[in-house]
Amino acid sequence: MEDVAIIGTGFIGRAWAISHARAGNSVRLWDQDAAATGRAKDYIAGLLPDLLKNDLLNGQAPDAVLARIQPVESLEAAVAGVSYVQENTFERLDVKIAIFQRLDSATPADAVIASSTSALLPSAFTEGLVGRARCLVAHPINPPYVIPAAELVPAPWTSPETVERAARILTEIGQKPIVMKREIDGFVMNRLQGAILEEAFRLVADGYASVEDVDIGIRDGLALRWSFMGPFETIDLNAPGGVRDYVERYQGLYRGLFASMMRRVEWDGPVIEEIARDRRAALPADQLQQRQEWRDRRLMALIAHKNRADRDIGA
Amino acid sequence: MEDVAIIGTGFIGRAWAISHARAGNSVRLWDQDAAATGRAKDYIAGLLPDLLKNDLLNGQAPDAVLARIQPVESLEAAVAGVSYVQENTFERLDVKIAIFQRLDSATPADAVIASSTSALLPSAFTEGLVGRARCLVAHPINPPYVIPAAELVPAPWTSPETVERAARILTEIGQKPIVMKREIDGFVMNRLQGAILEEAFRLVADGYASVEDVDIGIRDGLALRWSFMGPFETIDLNAPGGVRDYVERYQGLYRGLFASMMRRVEWDGPVIEEIARDRRAALPADQLQQRQEWRDRRLMALIAHKNRADRDIGA
Repeated sequence: MEDVAIIGTGFIGRAWAISHARAGNSVRLWDQDAAATGRAKDYIAGLLPDLLKNDLLNGQAPDAVLARIQPVESLEAAVAGVSYVQENTFERLDVKIAIFQRLDSATPADAVIASSTSALLPSAFTEGLVGRARCLVAHPINPPYVIPAAELVPAPWTSPETVERAARILTEIGQKPIVMKREIDGFVMNRLQGAILEEAFRLVADGYASVEDVDIGIRDGLALRWSFMGPFETIDLNAPGGVRDYVERYQGLYRGLFASMMRRVEWDGPVIEEIARDRRAALPADQLQQRQEWRDRRLMALIAHKNRADRDIGA
Repeated sequence: MEDVAIIGTGFIGRAWAISHARAGNSVRLWDQDAAATGRAKDYIAGLLPDLLKNDLLNGQAPDAVLARIQPVESLEAAVAGVSYVQENTFERLDVKIAIFQRLDSATPADAVIASSTSALLPSAFTEGLVGRARCLVAHPINPPYVIPAAELVPAPWTSPETVERAARILTEIGQKPIVMKREIDGFVMNRLQGAILEEAFRLVADGYASVEDVDIGIRDGLALRWSFMGPFETIDLNAPGGVRDYVERYQGLYRGLFASMMRRVEWDGPVIEEIARDRRAALPADQLQQRQEWRDRRLMALIAHKNRADRDIGA
C-alpha cells in the first residue's frame, strides 16, 4: 500500500483519488482553493454507491473506501511522507512550472511526482528541478476508476526507476499503464484518436459518408474487436500466418490509401455545420448532460462485462 | 422475407447465409466448385449450436435456421426469382467482371446484386452491364452474423432505389448498413482502420511506444467508448457544449499533431521485426488458431452484452 497525495481536486484529481483509495492506498487531498477538497470528498461519497452497484469497488463498502481519503490544509501536509504524488492543476505552463517547483521542494526525495497533463510535455515544466529525475506525466482517460489505460510519459531526464515505480503503483491500483519510451506531443492515445478523427472529418467533408455512418463503422464494426484486443492483435489474428503475413497481404491496400490522407480538412470549416446539425438532430443540446450520464453507465457496464469475460473466456 | 442467392460459399458467403437465414430469408447457395455448397452447409450446421448458446439465433432452433439454406447446382437456379444476390467470389477484377456479367443476365431485373468485395470499387466491374443501376458493393466485416456494420458502396450509376433497398434488406436481417454516398478506395472502415494503423506503426517505428502499449491505449482506453458510441458521438459528449465546443477547444491540439502524421513508415521495414517478435512472444505461432477461436467467443459475448445494455440502459 502507498501513501498518495492528490494535488488539485477537480474532476481528474477526484477520479484518481477513487482509483487509489479503492485499491487500499491512503490518499490525501489538497487544493489551492481550501473549500475544494471538502467538495471533492462529498462528490466522491455520492459516487461510491453507484460504483458499488456496478461491482467497481472490489467488494468493499463505500465507507471503507471513503475512510482512506483525507482532505488536508496545506500542500506540505499533503505530500509529507508520501511515495507518490498525482498533480491535477490547470493546464497552463506557468501553473505547472510553479506547482512542480513547490512539489519538488516539499515531497520526500524518493517519491514519484506525476502530472495528469494531457497537453504539455513533461520536459516543459520539470527541466530546472533538483528532483527532475523523479518527475513524469501520468495521463489518464477520464475517469480512471472506470477506464484502465493511463499514459506514463518520461522527460529525457526522468530515471528508468521512476517510470518503473510509477508503472508498478498504477498497475497495483488496477490501471493499465502505457509506458512510453520518450515524450511526443499527443502522447499515444490522443495521437491515435487524432489519426482516426482526421480521417472521419475528411470522409464527411468530402461527401463520402455521414456522421452517423462513420460512427456505425466504429461502434458496430471496428471497435468491437479493438475493445478487447487492440489494433495490433486484431491484425495479427486477421491473416493465417499472423502479423507478418497480414502486412505482406494488405500493406499494398493501405499504402494506396495513404496519399489521400495527407491533406487536412479544417474541422471548423464548412464540415462542422453538417456535423453539428446531424449530432443536434440525433441529440438535442438540452439532452447532452443526460446522455453523458448514459455514457458513464454504459462504460461501467462494459467494464463489468470485460471483467467477467476475462474470467470466463480468458483475457 | 426475401429470397436470396449466395454466390460463392467460402468463409464470407457462408457467413452471409447465416445472417439471412437467421432472419427468416430463404437462401440458395451456389459455388463454381460443386462440392463447396455441401461443405458450406455442413460448416453452418456445425456452427449454429454455438450461435444458439450465445443467444445469436433470435430464439430459434438451429434446425429451423438450417432448413432455410439450400445448396443448388447452377447459378441460374440460385438466382431464379430472388430479390437479392450476394456475390462472394475471388478478389480479382477479371473474376468479378465475369461473374457480374453472368449474374446480371440471369437475375430478375428488379433484384439487387451486391458484391462482398473489400478491395475493388463497384465501378470497376459493373460499368458495362445492362443492369448496372441495380449493382453495388455490400462489404461486411467478418463474420456479419456477429458484427453488424456492413458498407453499401454505390457506383456512379447505381440507382438510389438500389441503395435504399439494399439498406432495408440488410437492416431487416440485423446488420447496421453504412450507406456511402459515393465510392472511394478503402470505403469507410478500411480507411479508418488504415488511419489508426499508420499512426500505430509510426509510434512503434519511431521508438515512442511498444506494440503492447499501442494495444493498451485502444483496448483499455479509446475503444471502450467507441464500441458503443463511435468517435463523433464520443467527442460530442466530451465538451460541455457538444461537438462544436469540442472542435473550438481541441482542434489546435490535433492540428499540431497532423504535420508529424504526413510521413508514412513502411510496415515491412525494420518495424515489422519488432512487431512480429513482440506478437510471437505474446502468442506463439502454433496458438494463432486457438486465439482466433478465443476472439470469436469474446466477440459473441460482447454482442450479447451490447444487446442487453441496449435494452437495460438504452442504445
